[in-house]
Amino acid sequence: MTQTAPVPQPRPVPEYAPLNRARLIAPGPVEVAPDVLLELAQPQLHHRAKAGVQKLLEARAKLTRLLGDPYDAVITTSSGTGAFEGALLSTTPPGARVVNAQAGKFSERWGEMARRFGYDTRIVAKPWGEMLDADEIADACRGAHTLCVTHSETSTGALHDLEAIARAAKAQNPDLIIIADCITSYGVAELRPAAWGVDVIVSGSQKGTATPPGLGFVLFSPEVQGRMIQAPQSFYLDLTRELAGQKAGNTPQTPAINLISALSLALDRLLSVPLEVLWAEQRRKTGALIAAGTALGAPAWAARPSPAVAVLRPPAPLTGRQVAGRLAELGQRALAGQAPHEDTVFRVSTMGYADRYDALAIAGMLEDAFTGLGAPVQRGAAVQAAWEVLARE
Amino acid sequence: MTQTAPVPQPRPVPEYAPLNRARLIAPGPVEVAPDVLLELAQPQLHHRAKAGVQKLLEARAKLTRLLGDPYDAVITTSSGTGAFEGALLSTTPPGARVVNAQAGKFSERWGEMARRFGYDTRIVAKPWGEMLDADEIADACRGAHTLCVTHSETSTGALHDLEAIARAAKAQNPDLIIIADCITSYGVAELRPAAWGVDVIVSGSQKGTATPPGLGFVLFSPEVQGRMIQAPQSFYLDLTRELAGQKAGNTPQTPAINLISALSLALDRLLSVPLEVLWAEQRRKTGALIAAGTALGAPAWAARPSPAVAVLRPPAPLTGRQVAGRLAELGQRALAGQAPHEDTVFRVSTMGYADRYDALAIAGMLEDAFTGLGAPVQRGAAVQAAWEVLARE
Repeated sequence: MTQTAPVPQPRPVPEYAPLNRARLIAPGPVEVAPDVLLELAQPQLHHRAKAGVQKLLEARAKLTRLLGDPYDAVITTSSGTGAFEGALLSTTPPGARVVNAQAGKFSERWGEMARRFGYDTRIVAKPWGEMLDADEIADACRGAHTLCVTHSETSTGALHDLEAIARAAKAQNPDLIIIADCITSYGVAELRPAAWGVDVIVSGSQKGTATPPGLGFVLFSPEVQGRMIQAPQSFYLDLTRELAGQKAGNTPQTPAINLISALSLALDRLLSVPLEVLWAEQRRKTGALIAAGTALGAPAWAARPSPAVAVLRPPAPLTGRQVAGRLAELGQRALAGQAPHEDTVFRVSTMGYADRYDALAIAGMLEDAFTGLGAPVQRGAAVQAAWEVLARE
Repeated sequence: MTQTAPVPQPRPVPEYAPLNRARLIAPGPVEVAPDVLLELAQPQLHHRAKAGVQKLLEARAKLTRLLGDPYDAVITTSSGTGAFEGALLSTTPPGARVVNAQAGKFSERWGEMARRFGYDTRIVAKPWGEMLDADEIADACRGAHTLCVTHSETSTGALHDLEAIARAAKAQNPDLIIIADCITSYGVAELRPAAWGVDVIVSGSQKGTATPPGLGFVLFSPEVQGRMIQAPQSFYLDLTRELAGQKAGNTPQTPAINLISALSLALDRLLSVPLEVLWAEQRRKTGALIAAGTALGAPAWAARPSPAVAVLRPPAPLTGRQVAGRLAELGQRALAGQAPHEDTVFRVSTMGYADRYDALAIAGMLEDAFTGLGAPVQRGAAVQAAWEVLARE
């Protein structure tokens, strides 16, 4: 007889579950502060009126402060993918060699994008969940024009060592332009692009900035601005033109001005503390989720976890879809893994309008979800493990 | 040398505190669901238009369902105190004997009110924090017209035994009208007025019904409706007239119709589960706060705690004001005790739009507040104690 894992005995969803407060605990879209949501419903601004121009300039200035380096921000009315497309096309001439470092869903997307536009695309890949290798990437960057790399990989929960990658790649090729997908690291994880040599930072509104979806952000270093492409292969995402316009408070096309007003308000909370405090608190909150998962036999997938999202591997026979499904039954929106890893992992996040006490609450939800799925949970272990991380000052 | 308690060494407020999500954890006003708040901002209804009349009828019907007994609801545009005044004047003729059972701030208020209106007022009092005695009250009710009694005393955290009091009083005086202040027990604690013999239930919108302040509720038994006073000593709070009008969907005066719409929506959440489940979950959440407090050396003041609010006695030399003040520094609105007990106790609540995971979060806040005040806290003890209550099914 072979030994088999015990078959979990799921419990019915508790009768009280309809009383639960529904929460977004997914890695975006995230919870938004009530006053930020109401900002969307303020009397409609015209984006060319003085007040509309002022909102754009104010939001751009705060985006720069959130980066901590004197880059110039462009706000696109698009998702983060749109912002990335604009960044690539507006810095990289047709036919140029583009190196794409991949180790997950989102970094794969940038390779697909580069190929679509006919760039001479070179892929440097690692399996999902593994860490990118700085030297390997640097080798591939010899003779390349642009490197596309993902800092926080939302599909695997890995925080790639952008500092090491950028330093190694620039050592090989000082003229390289590095575009970093910081969609879930900007405002979340330590990010010092000027010191590290990262030229372009890309993000989106529904992640660390705790704003509804609809805006992309691209932040350009002073140096890279002198090398931007005139009339790139996109009209809408011509960020060369956008950057020139937005510096004066103008957007060539109609922007989502209500979202820009909301963004400006949401940034005040993040900027109310030093960046180091913001980063440390995000790391602590996510560390608490990982500690809770580990206590439940569901450790982090990545060796170097991103503070944006806890991507956790449930113990067999539990699957990522089961855990996310049970959380949904409890009223909470988390995510399973991204295809083809829907069952390998589940993903929970404290990005957005959520604090350390919410992280403690999520630890309780995880414990309830595992118990409900019939996993052999030692009651209290996940909550205790999370709180140990949070209460440690 | 006499032994003295160690002097607490308060810590500075943590740098991350501005990132905390601000919460109302006081026993009213409470957190309100976002969709309920937005209901306030829907296009203005006219209260005499068909849609306005419908909202009133709908809210009244749900208030009756929330009681679980076939009483008739009147919605006043007032605080709970206004509703109580209307209930007293509309059921009790001038000069009648009114018995007032007191053991805290709110029950004292009803005695003051009865005296103001010239009733032959008899007080049956216990010190704050102690429980009312059913037999003592019943003795005082001989020959009385009306008994005013508080079910959940928000100043002390006591849930008085309304069932025992009502049964004993009615046994002495079957014609007695019993008006119960259920301001923080309605929708929160077990309440079966028909079986217990309670004629009139009074509450307010900003407590168990998780709606903003501005509405009072009075629910009349079928029997007491035949004994109501015509043209009582108030014009605005003439609930005899209101009841007749509201049964047909009319309010003699202009009602806060936006709040009534919001109330109707808020009641759907409470009515989404059986009343027994609602009551059990509220008891469990407050039990978790009391367990957390007890682990911190701050047990419940009352022998029979109300599920509406945890009124906790901090260990000397900590004071209620210090704990409430520290929670405020962490961004959370709790309350100290009511004068003259500001320093005796502090008060935290999970009424309103808050679930069991919020109760766990509040346990963390209490632990942080005590630690911050320099109390000798065993880290993890309060959180663990709270979670033991919540995870026990």
